[in-house]
Amino acid sequence: MRLVVLRIGHRIPRDNRITTHVCLTARALGADGVLISDVRDRELVDTIKSVVRRFGGEFQVEAGRSWRSAIAEWKRAGGKVIHLTAYGMPLPRVIHEVRRSRGDKMVVVGAEKVPGELYGLADWNVAITNQPISEVSALGIFLDWFFDHSRLEVSFPHAELRIVPSEHGKRVVSS
Amino acid sequence: MRLVVLRIGHRIPRDNRITTHVCLTARALGADGVLISDVRDRELVDTIKSVVRRFGGEFQVEAGRSWRSAIAEWKRAGGKVIHLTAYGMPLPRVIHEVRRSRGDKMVVVGAEKVPGELYGLADWNVAITNQPISEVSALGIFLDWFFDHSRLEVSFPHAELRIVPSEHGKRVVSS
Repeated sequence: MRLVVLRIGHRIPRDNRITTHVCLTARALGADGVLISDVRDRELVDTIKSVVRRFGGEFQVEAGRSWRSAIAEWKRAGGKVIHLTAYGMPLPRVIHEVRRSRGDKMVVVGAEKVPGELYGLADWNVAITNQPISEVSALGIFLDWFFDHSRLEVSFPHAELRIVPSEHGKRVVSS
Repeated sequence: MRLVVLRIGHRIPRDNRITTHVCLTARALGADGVLISDVRDRELVDTIKSVVRRFGGEFQVEAGRSWRSAIAEWKRAGGKVIHLTAYGMPLPRVIHEVRRSRGDKMVVVGAEKVPGELYGLADWNVAITNQPISEVSALGIFLDWFFDHSRLEVSFPHAELRIVPSEHGKRVVSS
């Protein structure tokens, strides 16, 4: 099973940092990759690729395809679409069904406004609290639950740098 | 037991959106308030107060005190300090000890660089994965774990607006 994150509504330069945080969160919590739709943000893609090179793993990052065609293609191939939104169903009520479902998973996170159409296209609209929140923390919490709270101590293969957990300090080793 | 979030290293305008996401995440996941240290960002404080007015709850937001004196005062009053950092101890290994500890909790989240001193001042340096991640998702995941995954369906008192969970749509009721 593959899980990718689709980031929609990214605008340069307004969303540079938030989208970077979305990508780092996706990678750290076990997603296989991220697709930034509709905008070719070379600099952002390079930033994330450089993190992958240094800290390891197989995380893929791609930018520029239209969100509509990315979702349509995903669904045609049998994949499921989960849209994170404060308007959706509370995570605890739907997570079991999402986990049990077959097919690869696409987790969609929007910027401030998302196209209304998306609510109909998604297999699940999922709320990480029905409160105004951040797509960054919503994504992190969703992935943590989806992977059954098991991704917080995973080590990444092919890392040049590895952080060694410390009680009071900073320790990094290079391979 | 009170839990507040201390946001350090906030810069105007660079961090406006990230710090806003920190505040929204803190409120949505059950913190009692946030303190933005060292900078008086009136606009940001007003944005968060307006969310509280509309969506309810008792969340407090304050800006401008020095982070050093805020931490010193917190510790003098018997409170505990948890610093979220990729260099710290993995959350699953320390969360039980943090939950069991007495005293109010202050959860510190920094921007890109944090003063080295903080690693010594904190009672716990806690990593939400030992990978580059976002302080926004790190905070969300920490609070979700701290409150035992119980805060995702809480309703907030005194709300003018309330989102009604929907499978495919957007529904908001006003009081």
